[in-house]
Amino acid sequence: MIVVMEENAGEALVQRVIDRMVDLEFTVHRSTGLVHTVLGGVGPEDRIDPKEFEVMEGVKEAHRIISPYKLANRHFRPGGTVVKVGKVEIGGSEMVLMAGPCSVESREQIRRCASIVAEAGGRVIRGGAFKPRSSPYSFQGLGEEGLQMMREAADEFGLLVISEVMDSTQIPLMVRYADILQVGARNMQNFNLLRELSKIRKPVLLKRGIAATIEELLLSAEYLLSGGNYEVILCERGIRTFETYTRNTMDISAIPVVHKLSHLPIVADPSHGTGRRDQVIPMARAAVAAGADGLLVEMHPDPDRARSDGAQSLRPEQLTELAQQLRVIASAVGRTL
Amino acid sequence: MIVVMEENAGEALVQRVIDRMVDLEFTVHRSTGLVHTVLGGVGPEDRIDPKEFEVMEGVKEAHRIISPYKLANRHFRPGGTVVKVGKVEIGGSEMVLMAGPCSVESREQIRRCASIVAEAGGRVIRGGAFKPRSSPYSFQGLGEEGLQMMREAADEFGLLVISEVMDSTQIPLMVRYADILQVGARNMQNFNLLRELSKIRKPVLLKRGIAATIEELLLSAEYLLSGGNYEVILCERGIRTFETYTRNTMDISAIPVVHKLSHLPIVADPSHGTGRRDQVIPMARAAVAAGADGLLVEMHPDPDRARSDGAQSLRPEQLTELAQQLRVIASAVGRTL
Amino acid sequence: MIVVMEENAGEALVQRVIDRMVDLEFTVHRSTGLVHTVLGGVGPEDRIDPKEFEVMEGVKEAHRIISPYKLANRHFRPGGTVVKVGKVEIGGSEMVLMAGPCSVESREQIRRCASIVAEAGGRVIRGGAFKPRSSPYSFQGLGEEGLQMMREAADEFGLLVISEVMDSTQIPLMVRYADILQVGARNMQNFNLLRELSKIRKPVLLKRGIAATIEELLLSAEYLLSGGNYEVILCERGIRTFETYTRNTMDISAIPVVHKLSHLPIVADPSHGTGRRDQVIPMARAAVAAGADGLLVEMHPDPDRARSDGAQSLRPEQLTELAQQLRVIASAVGRTL
Amino acid sequence: MIVVMEENAGEALVQRVIDRMVDLEFTVHRSTGLVHTVLGGVGPEDRIDPKEFEVMEGVKEAHRIISPYKLANRHFRPGGTVVKVGKVEIGGSEMVLMAGPCSVESREQIRRCASIVAEAGGRVIRGGAFKPRSSPYSFQGLGEEGLQMMREAADEFGLLVISEVMDSTQIPLMVRYADILQVGARNMQNFNLLRELSKIRKPVLLKRGIAATIEELLLSAEYLLSGGNYEVILCERGIRTFETYTRNTMDISAIPVVHKLSHLPIVADPSHGTGRRDQVIPMARAAVAAGADGLLVEMHPDPDRARSDGAQSLRPEQLTELAQQLRVIASAVGRTL
Repeated sequence: MIVVMEENAGEALVQRVIDRMVDLEFTVHRSTGLVHTVLGGVGPEDRIDPKEFEVMEGVKEAHRIISPYKLANRHFRPGGTVVKVGKVEIGGSEMVLMAGPCSVESREQIRRCASIVAEAGGRVIRGGAFKPRSSPYSFQGLGEEGLQMMREAADEFGLLVISEVMDSTQIPLMVRYADILQVGARNMQNFNLLRELSKIRKPVLLKRGIAATIEELLLSAEYLLSGGNYEVILCERGIRTFETYTRNTMDISAIPVVHKLSHLPIVADPSHGTGRRDQVIPMARAAVAAGADGLLVEMHPDPDRARSDGAQSLRPEQLTELAQQLRVIASAVGRTL
Repeated sequence: MIVVMEENAGEALVQRVIDRMVDLEFTVHRSTGLVHTVLGGVGPEDRIDPKEFEVMEGVKEAHRIISPYKLANRHFRPGGTVVKVGKVEIGGSEMVLMAGPCSVESREQIRRCASIVAEAGGRVIRGGAFKPRSSPYSFQGLGEEGLQMMREAADEFGLLVISEVMDSTQIPLMVRYADILQVGARNMQNFNLLRELSKIRKPVLLKRGIAATIEELLLSAEYLLSGGNYEVILCERGIRTFETYTRNTMDISAIPVVHKLSHLPIVADPSHGTGRRDQVIPMARAAVAAGADGLLVEMHPDPDRARSDGAQSLRPEQLTELAQQLRVIASAVGRTL
Repeated sequence: MIVVMEENAGEALVQRVIDRMVDLEFTVHRSTGLVHTVLGGVGPEDRIDPKEFEVMEGVKEAHRIISPYKLANRHFRPGGTVVKVGKVEIGGSEMVLMAGPCSVESREQIRRCASIVAEAGGRVIRGGAFKPRSSPYSFQGLGEEGLQMMREAADEFGLLVISEVMDSTQIPLMVRYADILQVGARNMQNFNLLRELSKIRKPVLLKRGIAATIEELLLSAEYLLSGGNYEVILCERGIRTFETYTRNTMDISAIPVVHKLSHLPIVADPSHGTGRRDQVIPMARAAVAAGADGLLVEMHPDPDRARSDGAQSLRPEQLTELAQQLRVIASAVGRTL
Repeated sequence: MIVVMEENAGEALVQRVIDRMVDLEFTVHRSTGLVHTVLGGVGPEDRIDPKEFEVMEGVKEAHRIISPYKLANRHFRPGGTVVKVGKVEIGGSEMVLMAGPCSVESREQIRRCASIVAEAGGRVIRGGAFKPRSSPYSFQGLGEEGLQMMREAADEFGLLVISEVMDSTQIPLMVRYADILQVGARNMQNFNLLRELSKIRKPVLLKRGIAATIEELLLSAEYLLSGGNYEVILCERGIRTFETYTRNTMDISAIPVVHKLSHLPIVADPSHGTGRRDQVIPMARAAVAAGADGLLVEMHPDPDRARSDGAQSLRPEQLTELAQQLRVIASAVGRTL
């Protein structure tokens, strides 16, 4: 922690800050400059918010210098983490394609999806069984039945299953059917859920909240890691900005930034990131060009009849075409698909 | 729903849109203009996202014209809702002051808080027993013991208790101790939690998420109302913007906007709204001047030693001084404190 | 400047950063901690962007510790600046009301406005002669003729004139008619214009840009002060956020923050801050409650027929009613109107 | 224009809205639904802000249905615009690389830059002669001398010159030296400058403001087109969001969105878009993958000694390496470099 005093802060104020730092178990090093006195503190920075010092009289600003996340930090595993699920490696040389419908709607629908995904070179099928909907009047998902249908379809076509868990009570059920458990953007800071997921032995895909900084995303990952689950995959899916043409603004730069700050793999979800089918393909290409370790894409055999998020679901032939373009782009960044 | 076609959209494209609207059970009214064909549809607008039409070929834009929330809409109760809890009325002529520490830390601490709040004219004591913390290494609250301490202190000084419920599993416990259950900003779209809270018979204070629009706040309220709980109090506590000096940007205008769009009372939380003690007082005054039905303020007997959020907690004497200023301002807008 | 090295940064990297700091004329103080090496530098911080160091290998982060603005800093004039224009003092004990139409439209219109403003207790009439419009097809203002009309009306009713200058070529003309020259939000970083305005001897009201941080607002003020014009009034008029119900989100907290960081007075413009007539009154009250030194309000004798921004203009009787409420609120914060 | 009335709006209120629409020269078509009365209006939508109607009593919402920009609309030139400058075509099959230093600093520096850019396959050299700096104490550019140096260097290596014009007074000078005039993000809504640039016969590259929507960018382009200058190139360079790790958040999705809404070419500036050298390369790749018609990249022979923006300038060898990757990616989207 570094605390910079105001230029006119007298000795008494400086001493009060030092006392408070010592109280909080910091070892303090004082440096008196021409203009500002600067106090450096070594101590429990991960638990103390610099704002605590910034509101003290005579303090100009305070900065944390140790990252608040430790296990998610790249220093913890400089070589990077590869999450292995069955034969699939996320964070390795393959750019892993995960696709499927927003919601599982019927046995036939999810079977067709699985067939299309497998043919396009995808490795994982996605599909919602429990849906977080902003309106209580919208379709809320098929529940366990949906999970069963998805598992069957995945097994038939040699795919893995990823599905969203909305609540800690759903974990036991989800673990039975899914290979990767997804935490949605709205739950990125549902700390009780994260704590429960840290105890399971299945990979978790953690989506960035629409108003979450990259640091907050890594802090939420820290909940999972510190509880013992190291199989964590991050996901950029768009943040909220003033622009209204797209549902969210996909922050492609989060991909290289996460790769710099953390050892965890990061995938991109251009479907939620844009909310519009006509933007999904260019943004999927952009994510791979920026170094994404995988893609999570919504696709529906008949998007116009989808029960949710049809507007952002690709048609089957679009997924195939996209996969072809991605192969070329992946090669430019030293990867395969 | 209104769908505006592109200026060059041919008859076939128009017909495809009409077919889809009819399919979704809309009654369609077509109006062919000089430049644009416009399709008006009466039907299940609350369940259909206009984006579904916007991505269809030939469509320029689509607008929902019926509010997606019904029970939270001011039309539902033009006279406004007054939430009654014991002798306290929220949404009535009194501007209700709720104050207390971020976390309950000890019997003595919460007792002193209650005494100060009561003396300042406050009606409700706030305090966290379960804390949602962005870092897994921070203090997580005293749990049930904290609730007991707060209940005793409140009873001694004739106050009500408000406390945050983080998870549906905590509801039975919380209902035993608290008079008002608070849903934090991070849980505003935890729909499972909202659904469970819609079944209880205690008031719920619902905080706006840091990236939530006012419409989304009202949709989350709709989850509570549609499940049968009409005792809902909304709360503005700051949104996330590009400005970094304050932790959040308090959107004071949300107060009059909510009053226009909804019948539900709305209070303001200037402590989380600013994150800095030196901003809490002016922003509390601003909220009351803008018409807030109440205030939720953090106060600590010794903020420099608070175990959480000390930086934004008022000192006891500041709460007293604030209450005096608020009395004058409340009078200017026809209210009492 | 403080530069924090990565935990694993070797001696060679530390030395490269020191060399670069010395090169840039910093005196460097090194402090080797348990985890991080921290380099403190005294030197030309106002000209060096900390990002220059953050992208160097082995650097974790860099912080500027001296404010980039000097003359706008509260330390420069701890007692605060009062801008005197004729008999009016902005930044003193009076909360100064400035009102008038968006655009000057006719002699009769501006005369009626002046009469209403004077009667409500206003001291300054506002009105645009040159209008910055986002569409080239919108009304662009009456130009010099409008300024003449406004000057006559102001003189008749004992008011001052404030009007917007869009371009440095308009300064000579504007100086002849206006008492205060306004720089619009879109021009807050038009540095050529600021440099020219720093040379005149009339007060300048500088509006915050819709995406400007408070620090950037103060840096733009610094352009005016460093060029020799100390008569600067700042203005909060709403920032752009994700919320769409209001045109902008008025950042009321900017008022107390500016008062803390700078000695310059700050007024609020709730008309542009909200864009909706029904929000102007509560937000005007909020701004005064938060400590604004003045208000800039749009008012039109017949808003439904205004040639620009009618939607956010108060009706005459609304201005009168607002002034009455403001008198009470001003008294709560130790001011008059 | 479509105006939707509130569900309980009586006949008198509906009539008042119709009268105001007719007053403003709209032809009104009324449609009385089960719940809402909807008024469709054909008329001068480009000049009327829907907010004018939204604040009228009884109105729920109003929507513009005709785009406020006409000449910038894709319908105006469905095939797209190719801006030809000498032998270079922007918007054609070649992805045009423009690179160079933030500021021209010396004859030797700009000559080396030109040599590197030409070798990497670039077609245009960029460099600032007049610099808009947020602090008055920062380096402000070499002025005309810088332009001369850049012109000589460009001619020697067969490149075109692009440079920023900050003010209309600089246009005559700039036209003598530059092939493309750049309007910076801070000037995107400097309408006087746009109007003057609409009269020249050289291409203008218009950067998106950091808080500008895509619609506003196109409206600013409309100023140029409606004044007679059809040689307009748009540029995405990052928007301001809550994320602080990068200086701005580059909105890659603006590229496909502009291609959908407008016929004008769009290039990307990943240097300002990220502000960090280590992010420039992945974001440049992403922009090309998303379909950008060109790139504007900062490069400096010795970034550590650059007089401005060194932190975001590539080293010479990085530009070369980037160009190689871009060739592969361009081929995936059917383009060359």
